[in-house]
Amino acid sequence: MNKNKTLVTAAVILIGDEVLSGRTKDKNLGYIAEFLGEIDIHVLEARVVPDQQSRIIEAVNALRPLYDYVFTTGGIGPTHDDITADAIAAAFSVNIDYNDEAMAILRTRYEEKDFNDARKRMARIPAGASLIENPVSQAPGFQIENVFVMAGVPKIMQAMMGCLAHRLEGGARMMSRTVRCDIGEGWIAAKLEVLQSEFPDVSLASYPFFNKDGMGTNLVARSTNEESLNKAEAALIAIVNGDSGK
Amino acid sequence: MNKNKTLVTAAVILIGDEVLSGRTKDKNLGYIAEFLGEIDIHVLEARVVPDQQSRIIEAVNALRPLYDYVFTTGGIGPTHDDITADAIAAAFSVNIDYNDEAMAILRTRYEEKDFNDARKRMARIPAGASLIENPVSQAPGFQIENVFVMAGVPKIMQAMMGCLAHRLEGGARMMSRTVRCDIGEGWIAAKLEVLQSEFPDVSLASYPFFNKDGMGTNLVARSTNEESLNKAEAALIAIVNGDSGK
Repeated sequence: MNKNKTLVTAAVILIGDEVLSGRTKDKNLGYIAEFLGEIDIHVLEARVVPDQQSRIIEAVNALRPLYDYVFTTGGIGPTHDDITADAIAAAFSVNIDYNDEAMAILRTRYEEKDFNDARKRMARIPAGASLIENPVSQAPGFQIENVFVMAGVPKIMQAMMGCLAHRLEGGARMMSRTVRCDIGEGWIAAKLEVLQSEFPDVSLASYPFFNKDGMGTNLVARSTNEESLNKAEAALIAIVNGDSGK
Repeated sequence: MNKNKTLVTAAVILIGDEVLSGRTKDKNLGYIAEFLGEIDIHVLEARVVPDQQSRIIEAVNALRPLYDYVFTTGGIGPTHDDITADAIAAAFSVNIDYNDEAMAILRTRYEEKDFNDARKRMARIPAGASLIENPVSQAPGFQIENVFVMAGVPKIMQAMMGCLAHRLEGGARMMSRTVRCDIGEGWIAAKLEVLQSEFPDVSLASYPFFNKDGMGTNLVARSTNEESLNKAEAALIAIVNGDSGK
């Protein structure tokens, strides 16, 4: 029971032309949202922005005052189109330079003859940031204040999330119950609305789906109050069973 | 050849708590981006916002002056949590009421005894909007100025895109070429940067990937100028073949 805790919130910024062109189908938002949900942090907004410094700065500075945490993915590799670190430094108005710790980490991966300027670029970290470990390919992410900057490759991003999780503090637990029914949401909308008014601390939502057998609806109740949630769930089940629709 | 055309741009707003919680893994952004790309409209930003009127209004009014087109998905069903139509009306400061044409369409789907208040709610359309046909489940989307409001269920959204496409006018065609190589991007980053400076009208990007055989890189060149693009592609192939990396 976390009745006395408040919700802890987050925003996600996906950086990359390839997501906006549809070339890459994003898998990071869903992963991050579920990962954070498990530790009681709630993603309330996401933005996808192109590889343009001004657009990254704008998104970061719009969101970091509004949410407890901001997570970015993408644009921290070795090539000229990897501009996230510079954009974050600019967003925070801090310098960016080769970071000793990041250089040492990268030297464990690359022999000196292979540690070229492009790869050294991955050690450029905004002043005041702390590194985020990358167990997959070493090149680190970083945290500056409440902003966590991660790689865009899902396998690396997921590993980074695991490594930074201990720095995050969750709040109230949002619990959910799903009641599935095989009728269209139009049949139960009125009863659902009444139920919503009866449970102000429960958020009721209805998600229609279509499959080969026709249409159906998932009714989802979410709340930080387990007692209210249990009552709302029982009421949802009663609605579904009592109103077959035809 | 569309050398004289300018880029036509779009933004996408995905509306729904379920996408932000990770419960629903979004498939709409990738579909919309590819669909629009095929008709020479380029998605340059996307936002995911919760089912809250103020947040929908804010996103719509932030994006509609910046892009040629804005597409929203989600929140136009019959239940109390479907608030997109009201939010769009508020964003445009217009009234919203039962739309005669939408009512007539819904009456073709529902018998009078089943056409309850919840279902009639799906005929509430902002003043001045034109309907978007829904061949799957009839309840229409709508267009108001440069904003297209569609369902969130992928099957319905995709059908709506097909029905509204004739209203859209594309611009310059963005063409792309992909050169795949089996070496990490750090080996070719320096040459790629030089190449980028030689082709200012081509956008060069590098996307690393990891699979069971190790890591590799997709080098992607994009341009509206086919001649430059062909030259850049040839140069990319030369880089990949000439620099095996080891």
